[in-house]
Amino acid sequence: MPSGLNPNLSRFIKKQVLQPLDYYVDGILGGDRSILGQSITLIESTQSAHQELAQQIINACLTHSGQSRRVGITGSPGVGKSTFIETAGLHYIEQGKRVAVLAIDPSSQLNQGSILGDKTRMEQLSRAENAFIRPSPAGMTLGGVAQKTRESIMLCEAAGFDLILVETVGVGQSEIAVHSMVDCFLLLLLPGAGDELQGIKRGIVEMADLVLINKVDVQNEKVAKRTRDDYKRALHLFPQKESEWTTRIHTGAALQPESLVDLWATLDDYFAHITTNDYLHQQRQAQSSYWLTESIQQALQDWFYEDESIKQSLKSLQQQVIEQQLSPFEAARRLLERKLR
Amino acid sequence: MPSGLNPNLSRFIKKQVLQPLDYYVDGILGGDRSILGQSITLIESTQSAHQELAQQIINACLTHSGQSRRVGITGSPGVGKSTFIETAGLHYIEQGKRVAVLAIDPSSQLNQGSILGDKTRMEQLSRAENAFIRPSPAGMTLGGVAQKTRESIMLCEAAGFDLILVETVGVGQSEIAVHSMVDCFLLLLLPGAGDELQGIKRGIVEMADLVLINKVDVQNEKVAKRTRDDYKRALHLFPQKESEWTTRIHTGAALQPESLVDLWATLDDYFAHITTNDYLHQQRQAQSSYWLTESIQQALQDWFYEDESIKQSLKSLQQQVIEQQLSPFEAARRLLERKLR
Repeated sequence: MPSGLNPNLSRFIKKQVLQPLDYYVDGILGGDRSILGQSITLIESTQSAHQELAQQIINACLTHSGQSRRVGITGSPGVGKSTFIETAGLHYIEQGKRVAVLAIDPSSQLNQGSILGDKTRMEQLSRAENAFIRPSPAGMTLGGVAQKTRESIMLCEAAGFDLILVETVGVGQSEIAVHSMVDCFLLLLLPGAGDELQGIKRGIVEMADLVLINKVDVQNEKVAKRTRDDYKRALHLFPQKESEWTTRIHTGAALQPESLVDLWATLDDYFAHITTNDYLHQQRQAQSSYWLTESIQQALQDWFYEDESIKQSLKSLQQQVIEQQLSPFEAARRLLERKLR
Repeated sequence: MPSGLNPNLSRFIKKQVLQPLDYYVDGILGGDRSILGQSITLIESTQSAHQELAQQIINACLTHSGQSRRVGITGSPGVGKSTFIETAGLHYIEQGKRVAVLAIDPSSQLNQGSILGDKTRMEQLSRAENAFIRPSPAGMTLGGVAQKTRESIMLCEAAGFDLILVETVGVGQSEIAVHSMVDCFLLLLLPGAGDELQGIKRGIVEMADLVLINKVDVQNEKVAKRTRDDYKRALHLFPQKESEWTTRIHTGAALQPESLVDLWATLDDYFAHITTNDYLHQQRQAQSSYWLTESIQQALQDWFYEDESIKQSLKSLQQQVIEQQLSPFEAARRLLERKLR
């Protein structure tokens, strides 16, 4: 990407003249979805002028953020995440909420698209006035995507969205990143615990606050109940969560909105629980601290690895480390020495 | 620690005059346990002269390392880790092996001791000629402890130890660190899956290659079998490991060495499996790369945070981030700018 831009968006930016800060901030605070989208495009740009403006926008919006419910949604491909998000989004819009849908999908690096790229998969929701759907930025590392997504959450909140759904693919490290920016983690599974679950990485089940066994119908109801019981037993083996919340498992079908009534009630219970015991507040403070540490680490690494000569040295030193000719520590020391001289 | 030394060891170092490099390297390669111990003390010292010598020793020993089986052992306090290690150590010494026992226990920062500090808990093993027991270094962060332990493994291997047992406490992030330096991960549990397991952190069960339900006797045999079946079911829900090994669960009692015969056989099976499919080799290369990346990160952080003025700025910026007055990214940018000017 010679332009330093997300290729999906470069066309837009090229046409767009940068506006003064107030244009973006006023637009966002006024709930303007188009200006919100333009601002997120600036967040995702790697051009330094865009980045600088983006950071000013974020800082101006920060004090207006934090008022939403942030929910992470994960599950293997095919489990029905898009349909679920469409159903959930329409349900909450009917309740008078404004719903933003974001995504963390580092695989979009490969296919130049994203799980949300195809808006036809959320046809109704994407047409709703109180919805904002934004695909995962492409062409970035997971760390980069995660940071951009977290910053986008802030802007969405400042724009008055009070339910943020963050979709992720359930096949990698992305869940850990999502976990560091949401209040609630919802896992979608298919009936029948076996090969179907191969896509779910280790540790994800333990992170879930809510589980929905999706695509349940008359034919697979029995299997679904067995799956639910299996997971209940497995979850029982895990220690209590920091939030002191006990994970609940529901069955249903996102295509049948009436089957999800209990799930929405549980989501309300969950937020009532973590509000009452102050976990919500504490968790968000911890997340902010975590992101500061992460940002420092990222800034250090960007500064360190930006050098072409460092990258070259790293290559040859790495080979020596793998072949046990040099200790990792000594290799790191030599690299830093080279960088600082 | 004004001397910059592990307080448990400072007495030794003060008396000790630093020897030339050959003294340590020849001693280690000759299998001298006392010189091995002195060298590890240098690894653990934070004095720069000691550190420099330690790194030279490590680099000289590197090509002689890598020939052992590295086994991580975890479990809650009270599960019987010390007894298990004593039994395992004596068993393998009887088989003609030389056994080194190391520990990763960041909690020793607090109590100035370590899980292995009290050698009376491994009375017989600590007297055996072919055993080397080393407590966890005190007064360090987990990252520090982990790095030192990994370097100690290299020296133990160069000194001819062919089974390295790395003990950890099962209550924190230490397991992830251990996992990045061992070939096999063994989890000890107690019969009865419930409150007893509260000490085992999320994700640990999934890491285990072998599980031993310990302290099984006639009275709790039935409970133990139920626990085993529960875990078997739970493990079944997790996807296949990268090593393509299926975790096995044994019951037994470390105080009754004859009850562990099957466990030793499984350990042999495991190493045969990962040798045949080359996972052992690939995993170790991946671990080396991981440690290079970690070392670079650590070196960058050491360099960054060594400044007193940076620490002060960090404090006030952190408060602003938590109070949502400043974005983490902007705070990090300001800190790095301050450091580089």
